[in-house]
Amino acid sequence: MSTADFSNGPACPIPIANYPNVLMAHGGGGKLSHQLIGMMIAEHFDNPALRQLHDGAVITAGQTQLAFSTDSYVISPIFFPGGNIGELSVYGTVNDLTMCGSVPKFISAGFIIEEGLPMEQLWRIVQAMKAAADRAGVQIVTGDTKVVDRGKGDGIFINTAGIGIIPSGRAISPSGAQPGDRIIVSGEIAQHGIAIMSVREGLEFETTILSDCAPLNGLVEAMYAASPELHVMRDPTRGGVASALNEIAESSQCGIRIVEQDIPINAEVRGACELLGFDPLYVANEGKLLAFVPAKDADAVLAAMRVHPLGKDAAIIGEVITDHPGTVVMKTSIGSSRVVDMLSGEQLPRIC
Amino acid sequence: MSTADFSNGPACPIPIANYPNVLMAHGGGGKLSHQLIGMMIAEHFDNPALRQLHDGAVITAGQTQLAFSTDSYVISPIFFPGGNIGELSVYGTVNDLTMCGSVPKFISAGFIIEEGLPMEQLWRIVQAMKAAADRAGVQIVTGDTKVVDRGKGDGIFINTAGIGIIPSGRAISPSGAQPGDRIIVSGEIAQHGIAIMSVREGLEFETTILSDCAPLNGLVEAMYAASPELHVMRDPTRGGVASALNEIAESSQCGIRIVEQDIPINAEVRGACELLGFDPLYVANEGKLLAFVPAKDADAVLAAMRVHPLGKDAAIIGEVITDHPGTVVMKTSIGSSRVVDMLSGEQLPRIC
Repeated sequence: MSTADFSNGPACPIPIANYPNVLMAHGGGGKLSHQLIGMMIAEHFDNPALRQLHDGAVITAGQTQLAFSTDSYVISPIFFPGGNIGELSVYGTVNDLTMCGSVPKFISAGFIIEEGLPMEQLWRIVQAMKAAADRAGVQIVTGDTKVVDRGKGDGIFINTAGIGIIPSGRAISPSGAQPGDRIIVSGEIAQHGIAIMSVREGLEFETTILSDCAPLNGLVEAMYAASPELHVMRDPTRGGVASALNEIAESSQCGIRIVEQDIPINAEVRGACELLGFDPLYVANEGKLLAFVPAKDADAVLAAMRVHPLGKDAAIIGEVITDHPGTVVMKTSIGSSRVVDMLSGEQLPRIC
Repeated sequence: MSTADFSNGPACPIPIANYPNVLMAHGGGGKLSHQLIGMMIAEHFDNPALRQLHDGAVITAGQTQLAFSTDSYVISPIFFPGGNIGELSVYGTVNDLTMCGSVPKFISAGFIIEEGLPMEQLWRIVQAMKAAADRAGVQIVTGDTKVVDRGKGDGIFINTAGIGIIPSGRAISPSGAQPGDRIIVSGEIAQHGIAIMSVREGLEFETTILSDCAPLNGLVEAMYAASPELHVMRDPTRGGVASALNEIAESSQCGIRIVEQDIPINAEVRGACELLGFDPLYVANEGKLLAFVPAKDADAVLAAMRVHPLGKDAAIIGEVITDHPGTVVMKTSIGSSRVVDMLSGEQLPRIC
């Protein structure tokens, strides 16, 4: 009944016979997500800013380069060990802006609340957002609140969008990786995803595994102070370290080699992964980053990271090579090599 | 279980005894919405940009003044006469940016899709967004896609945020109304809400009532060309003309007097309102604006509007007065006067 009639327009680019309906995996951060976003959405909205396939868009307003990013948060449960959907929604967008090389400044907040959400929970979430914004040094400047009928939502979903200012001289891009670059991870991986899954599965450990959700902008400024030549940064959220590395290998058309035993991972998180049958390389992080840095600067950047509380466990986990462009290969702990592929379905639904 | 413990923090500012849970009316654009947003969210996030209570925030990046706005769209049904959730989500944010005096430039799109949405519907929505962005002259530069389990969403929700650039010299604000200002509405009111409700209630009219959803940025540029002195602009969406005027009367601390018989309204829409028991002053619009203009410029602005397709039915419907500050009074068709109050509950759920 739309006035704009698309029935004679281009056919749906997703093979409808295979995927007549949207599946959970279309939102999981793996292959089906990439197909949906790449073939349908990005392809159709095509423009230079979107084509970068960054964590956000880099745009120009007047004389100023800005980063602009958005994420919707549909995490379940909304309160989890180490945080809640409120702070996650602020840190997530702060981190996406940071990964574009910008200094995050302004955040919007869009709430979609299911009728019946306890008012006290909403209040705790709002307080957490404010505390998170203060910690990250950003302002929540505009917002929107919608309520949907009971059974048509799930407690609360939050969308945040954000604007950051890119200092002149910074050029970060997913296609910027160069052979020889060292790959640094800022700390122990897979904490966020395992914190959520532990709650869902009712697992108990000696100490509670907490989400790592945290704002990375302070850490990144410390890294920039050590070297202005950061080639690529990415926060490995949905799809984890493996998906982020695959995206970068593809965008940069280079090969990536990582060393399993150099990847920092907490013993309890590793144990939980084994118990739950997850590969930690595919588990979401919410306060970690991957940085691609010229070899000559790697030690200086690493040293700068290690004196920051969010980078104390930072480690070099691999390097960029000219072999097998587009592919990520890992030297395993037992000495063999294996391809680390993009996640095909979805491993952990509604993890952020 | 959150690491940040708010149990000793300030008590929830909403009277929990009266409202232990979020109600549909908290999202309806009326009094409860204002209480929730004003007492809990805006009060807690408090900062100068948010305090403006504009359709968006006005912020400064480098030397450039920007408008930044967000809205989530939860409309039901997602396809309706005159449009679908896709174009609505683009036009809605374009219009909010325009109401801040800015030229809309960049849009973000965040999709929350319920598992099982037909892929073909998603494709039509994406096409509608692209067509809407082209019509409004904006680019969709960044986005996010999440999928939630069947029964935890409702087809699709879309959040858009947007950035507009404010040309120097423009100063628009909800508190800018001045006694003597003429109040102009850009066309026939209440179409969007009645188009949606007609579908929901299964009403049939001789001709289908279409949503008015449209981008207002072109019309507003024509208005600016006629007079740089536009004091207030607002698009009367949720809560309709009555709620928008009440917000402006309160922000500007002035009285507002409108004349019922001067308000343009389509005969079929009026009939549908009577049938459904709605007051058209409270029914949502998605392609109309209210402008407060100095009396000396009113005729020139009106003339400029009437040559634009989206302003052909524009009319002066009232004026700003010094009497009864904060209150809107209407001279009715039968010659009496009545207070036009803020909507108390919610009239039309999920209208945008």
